[in-house]
Amino acid sequence: MVDIQTRDVFAFMRSDLLQVEERLEQSAKVDFPFVSDLILGLVRAGGKRLRPIILLLSGRTHDFDHDTLLTAAAGVELLHTASLVHDDTVDRAALRRGRPTLNSMLPSGAVILLGDYLFAQSAMLAAATKSPLVVGIFASTLADICDGQLREMFVAHRLDQSLEDYERRIFGKTASLFAGSAEMGAIIGNASETEVQALRKYGTDVGMAFQIVDDVLDFREGTEQLGKPAGHDLTQGTVTLPTIIYASGLSNSSSAHARLQDVVSGNSDEPGEVERVVQDIRDSGALDASLREAEKFADRAKAQAGVVTDQETQDMLVEVADFVVDRSA
Amino acid sequence: MVDIQTRDVFAFMRSDLLQVEERLEQSAKVDFPFVSDLILGLVRAGGKRLRPIILLLSGRTHDFDHDTLLTAAAGVELLHTASLVHDDTVDRAALRRGRPTLNSMLPSGAVILLGDYLFAQSAMLAAATKSPLVVGIFASTLADICDGQLREMFVAHRLDQSLEDYERRIFGKTASLFAGSAEMGAIIGNASETEVQALRKYGTDVGMAFQIVDDVLDFREGTEQLGKPAGHDLTQGTVTLPTIIYASGLSNSSSAHARLQDVVSGNSDEPGEVERVVQDIRDSGALDASLREAEKFADRAKAQAGVVTDQETQDMLVEVADFVVDRSA
Repeated sequence: MVDIQTRDVFAFMRSDLLQVEERLEQSAKVDFPFVSDLILGLVRAGGKRLRPIILLLSGRTHDFDHDTLLTAAAGVELLHTASLVHDDTVDRAALRRGRPTLNSMLPSGAVILLGDYLFAQSAMLAAATKSPLVVGIFASTLADICDGQLREMFVAHRLDQSLEDYERRIFGKTASLFAGSAEMGAIIGNASETEVQALRKYGTDVGMAFQIVDDVLDFREGTEQLGKPAGHDLTQGTVTLPTIIYASGLSNSSSAHARLQDVVSGNSDEPGEVERVVQDIRDSGALDASLREAEKFADRAKAQAGVVTDQETQDMLVEVADFVVDRSA
Repeated sequence: MVDIQTRDVFAFMRSDLLQVEERLEQSAKVDFPFVSDLILGLVRAGGKRLRPIILLLSGRTHDFDHDTLLTAAAGVELLHTASLVHDDTVDRAALRRGRPTLNSMLPSGAVILLGDYLFAQSAMLAAATKSPLVVGIFASTLADICDGQLREMFVAHRLDQSLEDYERRIFGKTASLFAGSAEMGAIIGNASETEVQALRKYGTDVGMAFQIVDDVLDFREGTEQLGKPAGHDLTQGTVTLPTIIYASGLSNSSSAHARLQDVVSGNSDEPGEVERVVQDIRDSGALDASLREAEKFADRAKAQAGVVTDQETQDMLVEVADFVVDRSA
């Protein structure tokens, strides 16, 4: 029994998360009923709330102001939501979390403005912490996210990119907000500088693991499980870790390499060609190799969690890192 | 001579503005040379820098930290630039300040991300002031801007809107940032609460006057003067003050009203119909009536400037208010 209880971070955090939820819904309200319903639906469909959980856990280190932690936790989740809204517009995605995107229901101009509105609301939550340090991290995290997304747009279509290119991109796109969440939480929780830095690294590594697993799942699952079609990244021409690993095992002059190049560059007009490349990548072992990378990041994160002296909190941080990679099981 | 010198706020502020410019260019740099050039071009084409000037003037009230003022001034200008980038995407505008928009040179997804990037950079400048109060105003100003833009999208197409609807919208879209600039400057300048509120009202009124004049100029001038076609708002279906005043003088059953309704709702397929309605509005006296409204706001702003005890600063605030309406002469 004890084991089960201490292992269930999501149950333990439920009461905090309900309060985060209230703040989120408050911030998501706009004056136009139809739009307000769409945004609320999007905010409510928000999955496991990993970023708020990491922020709240990182804040439990020393003396902390609970109310400020909750506000900041709502802030990072709303920043995440805002960035998803714009990301879906950029990708022209029709589904997200199994639901139609705003993008598929509103003119793109309205979606841009609604994303901006959510950014503004998230910035207001960050400002409400009244901590210049927290606000500074919040703003630089947003810059990191944009940098990652710009890299995805301008660099991600290259088959010859290095592992470092990929990691730099997913740090910006995903891990930066996990890192920022941990750092903001630790600062609000009056952690020491050593703890702040260790928790920031913890967040970074959990975020890296999270995105690699996401990129693997994109190859594994279709619409039902993930809320979008399998091989979506490839169709968009986005080269992720499984493709990098797969491509590194191909001769540049092979027909498989030419086929992959066709799909990535969007020059393929043969029906079923994307599916075939997806199957080739699945068969190559690149998905398992990618997952081993994700596990390395998760292991590093768990080691960083050791800095937290409160055992209960440390255990839950470890549990979150495990959860992130276990999603692929 | 003396009179000319004290009247030329732009000359007086030149050295400060050069420093603001440096910070702007620093913040606008991104890692992709082609994109970096586009953003730099956009930032450099930035007109009179009215928002930074208002912030800097409002900050000259008492003891002020010059460096913090310059940082905040760059922040408001960059926030303005970011919002223009998204606004042009929403409007699908091809020209801005006489130059091609990013929107006309990059895929819309890239423009969304670049706008976000500029938002992030502007938030970093706001955070660099290390003032929770300033950051709070910055964030709520961004929310006001989004609210105004959403209103423009969802409400601005109605011919039966009231003057209050219009004013609320242009407050959000434009005047809120003038108001926020004055307020942030006053706070950084350690002004009293009375002065902060008076300067905020000053900014609001200058911003209202500015937008009304902009809406009048949209009817007056074509591509060369303004950098976009005449009657652009009407073509977009956006009803502004001149159209509201003109429509209020028409019988609902008149053919002129039907023609106006056609143009606003985008149902007009007759070539030259927009031009004809633009000419009708010019001939109706609605432009002059609108300018009188703008002057009322400018006069109110000048009265608020009286709160500033330093005569030189007060004079320059008055000069800015005059400049905003004199643009139409």
